[in-house]
Amino acid sequence: MKDVASAAGVALKTVSRVVNGEPGVHPQTAERVRAAIDLLGYSRNESARVLRSGRTATIGLVIEDVADPFYAGLSRAVEDVVIEHGCLLLSGSSGEEPGRERELVETFCARRVDGLIVVPAGDDHSYLRPELDAGTAVVFADRPPEPGIDVDTVLADNAGGARRAVRHLLEHGHRRIAFLGDDPAIFTAAERLRGYREELGDRFDPRLVSMRSPSAAGVRAELDRLFGLDDPPTALFTGNGRYTVTTLRALGRQRVALVGFDDFELADLLDPGVTVVAQDPARMGQVAAELLFHRVTGDAGPSQHVELPVQLIVRGSGELPAKA
Amino acid sequence: MKDVASAAGVALKTVSRVVNGEPGVHPQTAERVRAAIDLLGYSRNESARVLRSGRTATIGLVIEDVADPFYAGLSRAVEDVVIEHGCLLLSGSSGEEPGRERELVETFCARRVDGLIVVPAGDDHSYLRPELDAGTAVVFADRPPEPGIDVDTVLADNAGGARRAVRHLLEHGHRRIAFLGDDPAIFTAAERLRGYREELGDRFDPRLVSMRSPSAAGVRAELDRLFGLDDPPTALFTGNGRYTVTTLRALGRQRVALVGFDDFELADLLDPGVTVVAQDPARMGQVAAELLFHRVTGDAGPSQHVELPVQLIVRGSGELPAKA
Repeated sequence: MKDVASAAGVALKTVSRVVNGEPGVHPQTAERVRAAIDLLGYSRNESARVLRSGRTATIGLVIEDVADPFYAGLSRAVEDVVIEHGCLLLSGSSGEEPGRERELVETFCARRVDGLIVVPAGDDHSYLRPELDAGTAVVFADRPPEPGIDVDTVLADNAGGARRAVRHLLEHGHRRIAFLGDDPAIFTAAERLRGYREELGDRFDPRLVSMRSPSAAGVRAELDRLFGLDDPPTALFTGNGRYTVTTLRALGRQRVALVGFDDFELADLLDPGVTVVAQDPARMGQVAAELLFHRVTGDAGPSQHVELPVQLIVRGSGELPAKA
Repeated sequence: MKDVASAAGVALKTVSRVVNGEPGVHPQTAERVRAAIDLLGYSRNESARVLRSGRTATIGLVIEDVADPFYAGLSRAVEDVVIEHGCLLLSGSSGEEPGRERELVETFCARRVDGLIVVPAGDDHSYLRPELDAGTAVVFADRPPEPGIDVDTVLADNAGGARRAVRHLLEHGHRRIAFLGDDPAIFTAAERLRGYREELGDRFDPRLVSMRSPSAAGVRAELDRLFGLDDPPTALFTGNGRYTVTTLRALGRQRVALVGFDDFELADLLDPGVTVVAQDPARMGQVAAELLFHRVTGDAGPSQHVELPVQLIVRGSGELPAKA
């Protein structure tokens, strides 16, 4: 307002009168004030209003990596719900680093976001306590918070999906099924390992499990190790979309039965098409954002825990027979 | 500060003394004030500080669709530069709607972002003038603003890339080369059409051009029309990543020489591998963000116009011969 007053060459009080529609200002002066307001974009500076209202109409989203198609799909769905509610979205990628997750959350909170959707990289969320106590709404998606943090969560049926993938390969005659997955410190990777192990029962063989971050060289080395075993696998279960693609690239023209967790674009165009257990990242983003807005608008009921179903999509790679 | 004073049961002046490290406050009282500050998250409420400094350390990004891998890659690169500068990123997808582009830009400006990166959906940017006059830094990426708006731009060499694609097909013996591209109202689509047309010269035949938004049914219908011509095409040039994928899916097992604009994940795993003219979306995002921070930190030099090179990646589909 000072800038407006100075630009229009009038007193601060005059600006205040014009803004509040109070009488006692000469029409020509009022016009000058309005022109100055337009020029300075003052009328659209909501920051001051926001400070007064206590709400910022801003939501923070922390994901692993927006360049990963799974999180890109989730982000777009969150964005759509956020905009529908007349709010804006601050977003950031943690790059699977707990320190960056915390930094992003704390920076978002410093800007007083009304709510947060977090795909956590770490498993220590004690840093969230002051924010929760201060009334910031928080929803965890894809992965849960540490057990002591009581917030809404939206997770996929990871263990059930893994069981379904393994059952499908068992039904096609496979008995030696390897699991290539992400670091088991990651919740979804551990859950998928659990489902894989449960479905295999007595057939579970720890030598057929390879869990690490999916570098091309690492996957190639693990495939060499697996196929070099006395009793090698006849089928592979890959633990997420990136892992599936890295594995397919490492396999080259080598045809091995394979079911992947997560669908991906072009899975249907490969030869054979890639059979997958598909999550619905857009649905996950939408449900998380809707839960969040319930909280932002005052729902103080007990925390909700949504488990989204997954779906087996049969395309060919999971139906290759075990070699005789 | 009022909330803190009331939570700690002290006078406003006492809170102010503690915050500013002034003497005259009993240590126990100071402790109570600090606890109240922690509880209310007051110390991390930067909004007030921001209002005073005139900068918000926030950047706005408007793209077409974060779920599109091209824009997801661009977003991630922008995000990295923004965080490196200690700033936060507000982002939104226009969904190719000029109205939503404008709404997003205006909402970002209302929050007083320090700068904006815009991939425009529309070609009327007069609404940006007050923001530019008010000193908001703006960079356009992927597509330029309307001619009257003088800002930094980062574009790819769209016409050159299209010429390169067509030349590659001509070198492999093709004379009838169809172009399937997006709506020519979109700058990049029009530029690629221009390159296609220039390279073909006298061989240009408008019946071989099909430009519309890439629905699966639409692409299938256009392929039927093209292959039903008396003198049908022997090769296809597809105008962006989404178009290439939709076309490949519509072609099914039909093998036709094809070069696509934009690289995409798995292009190398298809059979044959898909020859593309590749842009570098991460580089585009990085350059746009770096240009923006030069402006934000005071560079007032003439506007810069960066054209990023594109690269032909030969994988097999573009080398299929014309049928004898």
